[in-house]
Amino acid sequence: MSNSKPKLLSLLPAWAWLSHYSPVKFKSDVLASLIVVAMLVPQGMAYAMLAGLPPIMGLYASILPMILYALFGSSSTLSIGPVAIISMMTFATLNPLFEVGSPVYIEAATLLALMVGIISLLLGLCRFGFLIQLISHPVINSFIIASALLIAIGQFKFLVNVPLKADNLQEFFLSILEYIHLMHWPSLVLGLVSIALLVYLPKILKSQAVQSRVGSTDYVVRSVPLILVALGIIAAVYLNLQAEGIKTVGAIPSGFPPLSFPHWNWELVMTLLPGATMIAMISFVESLSIAQATALQQRSQLNSNQELIALGIANISAGISSAFPVTGSLSRTVVNADAGARTPMAGVLSSLLIIVVSLFFTGFFEDLPLTILAATIIVSIWRLVDFQPFMDAWRYSRADGIAMWVTFFGVVFIDITTGLIIGIISTFALMLWRISRPHIAVVGLLEGTQHFRNVQRHQVLTSDRVLSLRIDENLTFLNANAFKGFLINAVSDKQHLEHVIINCSSISGIDLSALEMLEDINTELSKLKIRLHLAEVKGPVMDKLQNSKLMKHLSGHIYLTHYQAIRELSPEIFSDYSKDYSI
Amino acid sequence: MSNSKPKLLSLLPAWAWLSHYSPVKFKSDVLASLIVVAMLVPQGMAYAMLAGLPPIMGLYASILPMILYALFGSSSTLSIGPVAIISMMTFATLNPLFEVGSPVYIEAATLLALMVGIISLLLGLCRFGFLIQLISHPVINSFIIASALLIAIGQFKFLVNVPLKADNLQEFFLSILEYIHLMHWPSLVLGLVSIALLVYLPKILKSQAVQSRVGSTDYVVRSVPLILVALGIIAAVYLNLQAEGIKTVGAIPSGFPPLSFPHWNWELVMTLLPGATMIAMISFVESLSIAQATALQQRSQLNSNQELIALGIANISAGISSAFPVTGSLSRTVVNADAGARTPMAGVLSSLLIIVVSLFFTGFFEDLPLTILAATIIVSIWRLVDFQPFMDAWRYSRADGIAMWVTFFGVVFIDITTGLIIGIISTFALMLWRISRPHIAVVGLLEGTQHFRNVQRHQVLTSDRVLSLRIDENLTFLNANAFKGFLINAVSDKQHLEHVIINCSSISGIDLSALEMLEDINTELSKLKIRLHLAEVKGPVMDKLQNSKLMKHLSGHIYLTHYQAIRELSPEIFSDYSKDYSI
Repeated sequence: MSNSKPKLLSLLPAWAWLSHYSPVKFKSDVLASLIVVAMLVPQGMAYAMLAGLPPIMGLYASILPMILYALFGSSSTLSIGPVAIISMMTFATLNPLFEVGSPVYIEAATLLALMVGIISLLLGLCRFGFLIQLISHPVINSFIIASALLIAIGQFKFLVNVPLKADNLQEFFLSILEYIHLMHWPSLVLGLVSIALLVYLPKILKSQAVQSRVGSTDYVVRSVPLILVALGIIAAVYLNLQAEGIKTVGAIPSGFPPLSFPHWNWELVMTLLPGATMIAMISFVESLSIAQATALQQRSQLNSNQELIALGIANISAGISSAFPVTGSLSRTVVNADAGARTPMAGVLSSLLIIVVSLFFTGFFEDLPLTILAATIIVSIWRLVDFQPFMDAWRYSRADGIAMWVTFFGVVFIDITTGLIIGIISTFALMLWRISRPHIAVVGLLEGTQHFRNVQRHQVLTSDRVLSLRIDENLTFLNANAFKGFLINAVSDKQHLEHVIINCSSISGIDLSALEMLEDINTELSKLKIRLHLAEVKGPVMDKLQNSKLMKHLSGHIYLTHYQAIRELSPEIFSDYSKDYSI
Repeated sequence: MSNSKPKLLSLLPAWAWLSHYSPVKFKSDVLASLIVVAMLVPQGMAYAMLAGLPPIMGLYASILPMILYALFGSSSTLSIGPVAIISMMTFATLNPLFEVGSPVYIEAATLLALMVGIISLLLGLCRFGFLIQLISHPVINSFIIASALLIAIGQFKFLVNVPLKADNLQEFFLSILEYIHLMHWPSLVLGLVSIALLVYLPKILKSQAVQSRVGSTDYVVRSVPLILVALGIIAAVYLNLQAEGIKTVGAIPSGFPPLSFPHWNWELVMTLLPGATMIAMISFVESLSIAQATALQQRSQLNSNQELIALGIANISAGISSAFPVTGSLSRTVVNADAGARTPMAGVLSSLLIIVVSLFFTGFFEDLPLTILAATIIVSIWRLVDFQPFMDAWRYSRADGIAMWVTFFGVVFIDITTGLIIGIISTFALMLWRISRPHIAVVGLLEGTQHFRNVQRHQVLTSDRVLSLRIDENLTFLNANAFKGFLINAVSDKQHLEHVIINCSSISGIDLSALEMLEDINTELSKLKIRLHLAEVKGPVMDKLQNSKLMKHLSGHIYLTHYQAIRELSPEIFSDYSKDYSI
């Protein structure tokens, strides 16, 4: 029996907090869940629209996934549900295939969620969580910034109530030229007023003047979008805005999310596969970075594969409960933690509250003007659009800077998925490029020390009979040839050469191509009566070399330190030459 | 004027040897060229057939390219011309498009040579020679072995005189089943006898018994194929083998190679492009490895881009002189050097001799049985089929072993070009995989020394308050997450932790993803009142870090040595604790 508990724990991390739950914790969890739901209702509906889906699906996407993540996930505060980037990717995947909002489109969205879930679950079960590392931070940052830009401009169609396209930037500008004369002014005014309120109201509420009078307004600030939505509904009903031509959300069915398994059409599955894979990757990136921060703060172990499994189960549940792909939301997670969530029970409670909303309160949202919902998306997403990271990356490392710009231009000028793929490929190419151009230097002894430095940068002691080389990279097929070329040219410069010493202090690995290259060099140098020596070979590298031909045929020695090698091979460069040599 | 010479030299390396040419050198060059031509005539015709082309094109391919390489190439002994692997790749590229041997097929072969030349020339002029490094040694070895296997079985159709297919292994076995009852026995017997002669005659000639009686037989051994060809022709004519149904080479036009620019059809060019690129890569790999060995022996500088330019010019000349793609031949280069070639003039002379053959002696080869020509290919190529390198690679490194087998199976079961591409991609994937799973260790102080070793392998001194980590790889996006995960789990194990020290001695680079990861870790650890320190940061890495946020916010210090860090942060682990602490 004593063994069964840890095993159960590993399958169902919820056991850890469920077994120690208390009324005190319950109270904090209830408060947190109320705040989160106040954010989630408008966000969920807006993100569903972003994905080209009926707003109610945004609520559905917050019910089952939240409960299941609470049971299987490792983070106690992570709030799972619809997220802007993932909704945008869902739109980008489905938009070319079906008419937006049509029944087949909706069915395909649930199928996509199911596929994302299955992919995540399989990757987690196969312990392929490390695959996440294929996407570098600069690419993700750039992807998020570029997507945010596309999401924001994609909402303009609701602001002006004409069917602007926004799959990429040039399409957006072309459709503005096409539709500018059809723009609906009342919608635009209402939208701009909403944007102004969303931007400035929180600033006013947070200002010294207000806070000193009424105390902390933090919770009110977070409810601003919900308040605006409520005001918008009231205005729409009492001022009869629909008569002015302002579009509203329209009838929302109430009730539990319908549970059904999406129709599994293999052909469609194959078409959706690339998109689903990308969504699974990005949703894992988002969730994992949140989970990692939590794990470190709680000093708890983190198993990234378990996170993948939890995310997979959450998405599968989204797929079978008429929702669309979900992931952890950074903004709601921060709010949840700040509001005092103690355990994943906060998530379960949020989920129950959303059920109440979808059962009884959907009617309220029927008269909500779309332009206001669009305004909430624009304001929340615009904060992400920031070009400082591009400058910082460029300054720190050209390769990372290039990868960011490639991703950015790919996303905004081609499309969101292609941009991401191009960005990922560019990081690989740049990494291979870097590895293939290693820093190689001829080094010499810094007088009076045992250190060796680049002859081109420092005043160092060298000998005509000995050539010392250092390469600052693992020796692999990507740089073996460059190293050989460098060595050939360095050797041809020294006509009295007797010894070549390769300093291996920066080498943690030598692959077969590089080993064969070293064997070739050794053979060719032997013919010229030049001996090849190695110095400062690391233990693991030495272990692998031990049985190689190179070790059998090496014309020289392996020295523990480069200094020892120089001491033995070219004692004449030392001022205490005669004294030392006699020893 | 004094400046113009080096400039001329760099454009036309031939200047270097032409200006010092002498009658003595001429004599050695003449002898070498005679030996090479004796090898080249049967080889050239056989390799042309391998490419699915008329035998005369094999002679054409040895005329202009040889002269031009002598002028532009840097190796004095490299023998350029038709080579088995390149011929096979030519066949694999053209076979799916046109009927083998048809006029459009022949025209496409010359276009392919022109394209290979243009690609090589452009790569060389743009200094893209380093691209060659994208192909690892194990992949090339495996590719050559697998291609050799396919080439050998591809010749069986001439041995048995039925149209066996051999694009891949399963096709070969299927067509054997289909055609076995049509097999032509006289051809097979003649072929097998030829193979036996080619294999055993050199062994007998080289044996102690023979050499002791007649002296060195080296030159005779190298002429065995030519002798067999001559015997075959005589037998065919006098025994009237054609009447037995044995196919012969047939009419060969004599004369200079017709010079004409291949018809430049853009659609065809685009179709041929992937094949042409692969051929350019492999021909450069072959030539460069030969040129590198030569350069080292002559202690001459080697410019790999100049080699690419020379190879490009040689292939362009092949394209406009009715030939097909060429490269440096290792076997003929070795023979050329052994026979005493002193300068590239040997190549020019070989070329002139081939002109003589094509002008006056093509008629001799008309009656040569194809089965004998096939036998010469099988014997010369079969020597390359060797599985020892697979075992060696597997033993030295799993990744290299896997890459070899992937390439091998790709080539023999799919096709030659696809196999090569799969092999190249697999090496990238395996390299990224390796980088993404770096060796990370918690280290401790080896008592009595200043060295730090893995706590799991050695008895070392550690403290509950200090965690020392070492990663044996550059920190990049591929392993930043793995490192973070390792650190999170290591931190969660130590409840009294105050300091984390990262030993950076194996890190030659930190990319932006890794830098942000370190910033995250620093921030999160600060919240837990744990300080992050770095030790043994290399100069270039430090230079880049200098202006980063990490340096501004680093909660701890940067120590020159890990020992210094431990001395300061956990003096209690030293036995001379009290004494040292007071200092």
